Amino acid sequence: MRIYDIITKKKHGEELTDAEIAFVIEGYTNGDIPDYQISALMMAIYFKGMCDRETATLTREIARSGNMLDLSAFGHLTVDKHSTGGVGDKTTLIVAPIAASLGCKVAKMSGRGLGHTGGTVDKLESFPGFNTSLTPDDFFSQVDRIGIAVIGQSGNLAPADKKLYALRDVTATVDSIPLITSSIMGKKLAAGSHSIVLDVKCGSGSFMKTPEDAGILAEKMVEIGKRNGRNIAALITNMDIPLGHAIGNSLEIKEAVSVLEGGGPLDLRTVCLELATNMVALSLGLEESVARERVTDALKSGKALAKFKEWIVTQGGDPAYANDPHSLPVSSFSRDIVAGTAGYITRMNAEEIGIASVGLGAGRETKEDVIDPSAGIIVYKKVGEHISVGDVIATLYSNKEQAFDAAEKKVLGAITVADERPEDQRLIYRVIK
Amino acid sequence: MRIYDIITKKKHGEELTDAEIAFVIEGYTNGDIPDYQISALMMAIYFKGMCDRETATLTREIARSGNMLDLSAFGHLTVDKHSTGGVGDKTTLIVAPIAASLGCKVAKMSGRGLGHTGGTVDKLESFPGFNTSLTPDDFFSQVDRIGIAVIGQSGNLAPADKKLYALRDVTATVDSIPLITSSIMGKKLAAGSHSIVLDVKCGSGSFMKTPEDAGILAEKMVEIGKRNGRNIAALITNMDIPLGHAIGNSLEIKEAVSVLEGGGPLDLRTVCLELATNMVALSLGLEESVARERVTDALKSGKALAKFKEWIVTQGGDPAYANDPHSLPVSSFSRDIVAGTAGYITRMNAEEIGIASVGLGAGRETKEDVIDPSAGIIVYKKVGEHISVGDVIATLYSNKEQAFDAAEKKVLGAITVADERPEDQRLIYRVIK
Repeated sequence: MRIYDIITKKKHGEELTDAEIAFVIEGYTNGDIPDYQISALMMAIYFKGMCDRETATLTREIARSGNMLDLSAFGHLTVDKHSTGGVGDKTTLIVAPIAASLGCKVAKMSGRGLGHTGGTVDKLESFPGFNTSLTPDDFFSQVDRIGIAVIGQSGNLAPADKKLYALRDVTATVDSIPLITSSIMGKKLAAGSHSIVLDVKCGSGSFMKTPEDAGILAEKMVEIGKRNGRNIAALITNMDIPLGHAIGNSLEIKEAVSVLEGGGPLDLRTVCLELATNMVALSLGLEESVARERVTDALKSGKALAKFKEWIVTQGGDPAYANDPHSLPVSSFSRDIVAGTAGYITRMNAEEIGIASVGLGAGRETKEDVIDPSAGIIVYKKVGEHISVGDVIATLYSNKEQAFDAAEKKVLGAITVADERPEDQRLIYRVIK
Repeated sequence: MRIYDIITKKKHGEELTDAEIAFVIEGYTNGDIPDYQISALMMAIYFKGMCDRETATLTREIARSGNMLDLSAFGHLTVDKHSTGGVGDKTTLIVAPIAASLGCKVAKMSGRGLGHTGGTVDKLESFPGFNTSLTPDDFFSQVDRIGIAVIGQSGNLAPADKKLYALRDVTATVDSIPLITSSIMGKKLAAGSHSIVLDVKCGSGSFMKTPEDAGILAEKMVEIGKRNGRNIAALITNMDIPLGHAIGNSLEIKEAVSVLEGGGPLDLRTVCLELATNMVALSLGLEESVARERVTDALKSGKALAKFKEWIVTQGGDPAYANDPHSLPVSSFSRDIVAGTAGYITRMNAEEIGIASVGLGAGRETKEDVIDPSAGIIVYKKVGEHISVGDVIATLYSNKEQAFDAAEKKVLGAITVADERPEDQRLIYRVIK
């Protein structure tokens, strides 16, 4: 088998065999096939696509390229949730303890944030002492005892994806549905959960800009998950505006806890209810209506909040803060952003607001940057709301006072105000099963 | 300027600016841009193409990537001939001395053979003592005095092409009209002649398999030559069958000399007359009919033959052989290939016959192989001819007797015999100016 012939086949739009796909991933992972041949193949795939069978095989081979987490000891109770990345997306902090409180097993690996999107691991580390590098034994035993553990991604999880993504990122071959699908789903397969709920974001703050594009990606991911023997569902949710009000690590923890306490912003609560319902329905094999009832009850009864606190303490978080997350430290400085014009907010660029929060210290521009857990933004006014001159639109939080000017400019630049009330924004476009 | 953005533009089918193309070629030549980004760009160009302006700029930048031969001292008299490569193609040995004998200046760099196609430099080295590595001073002075010199390609001629071609060769991005055009024409521009005649081969022995494909390539090359200020014409000629009878270095020298003596095979004579007429018309600024008359006269009068002998001697070739090339050594062994079936030859795979000649010692399989100048094949019967059982179709020549069996099998396998007389083959499909 020769990589040259495989590139030629794909260039001419032919389907690759399973053996050819395995040859590519194995050869690239172990260094036998050089970058320059794989980048040509990726570009040919960008133009000619892959059928579902090819994509499923590519996904499986990416999963197999490193260690695969064996969660079979937990039967079919394991459930994972994956978001394609957004601004202010703290849903894992809410839905994972809800699911665990209802008997699901949430054994989850999460990423760190880079650029304008945050990472769950960074958010959890707002709790002093929280340990995101459990040993495999401790990880399994914690899941067994309390039903939930979230750790950082292991170094050898789907190494083929790491190499492929780094190459695609510099060769303009990221935006290909089969390649995105195999990248995300390859890691999910390797992470081992039997059920998977995907939160596919669309809009200015995410990779897919329209619900139609997000739908195409979501359908493909669901199909590929099923072909690889998983229970799977996908929600298409709106990321044209940040989810909830808080952006920034401990600010998001506090907002997540508000939801677990039965309050919190409506948009965040709605998306979490839908995500958790799907997680519970898939992993416990329940009707959707039954699952929804149980999720509602877990919030109302305080079971989910109690599970959250148990989780944080069990995983090393300071019990004082775990039991009262609202007491987590606030930043030394804050600044209100005040409306200079009156009207309706018609547009809010979530990506720009995410970038503003990074400037305040809430995220990383490079992998080496250190995050300030207390930094971030609270956005009070969102798309569709009316503002008057002098209204506080948002508050910036930072320990670097000198960062406020640039962040304020960025946030104001991200908001469009007009006289006419915009159409209502949809929050959840579709659920695909 | 970022290579990532340039790949993205081309991926979306947009035209690259001249500055972007210059950035790519300069960056790749000096090593700033890695192979993996260029191979992705080449694949995007394969799918999205390049307009004439882009191709002309790419060609010019490839030419500029190394030393450019300055032949301006010879005014507009310089003329080059380029063949896209074929089996038994000895036309340079004939048309170059014809043109030189009529006052053109042929200052030519030629390649060596690799695989089934031969190289002019190898053929000339059949003359003991012939020097294909003249110093630049000696090269210019020889052209000045006798109007002709042919040397091997300089190491720093269009280094961007060398690097690009090696990359395209392993990433399945060779078969792209703008990339082929810029590769060939980039070297021709750097080689400095004011007029250029292209011999674009089509058929089984060459890269372009049909006259239509060859025509598309030839039109593009003529356009790009003109856009870069050169006089240019292209012939589309048949390479479904080897040109002439001889394949192999000294065998081809002898056949070329036969043409210069006024004889030789009709197909070879016809193609050479057309090539030489175009060379003379372009470089001396003559009407085609006048040029044709002069070429015919150069052959009839013996002027071209005399120029050939003068050239070989001037460039170091042994005068005894130069004055009587038919006395060049023959191989120790030969074997006749005899027809086992009767009928018409309907097809002759020139590429396979070329490969058979390599096996006899006439060419190289790898760059390190040493050529045996006396080895080769004389093909007596060609497409359209009738053969009877027992007819000698071809004779093999080699100093390795053990090579005959494989070569005979290959030659017989390359020939198709049938009862019906095939349609007449055309020799020259088109002339594009």
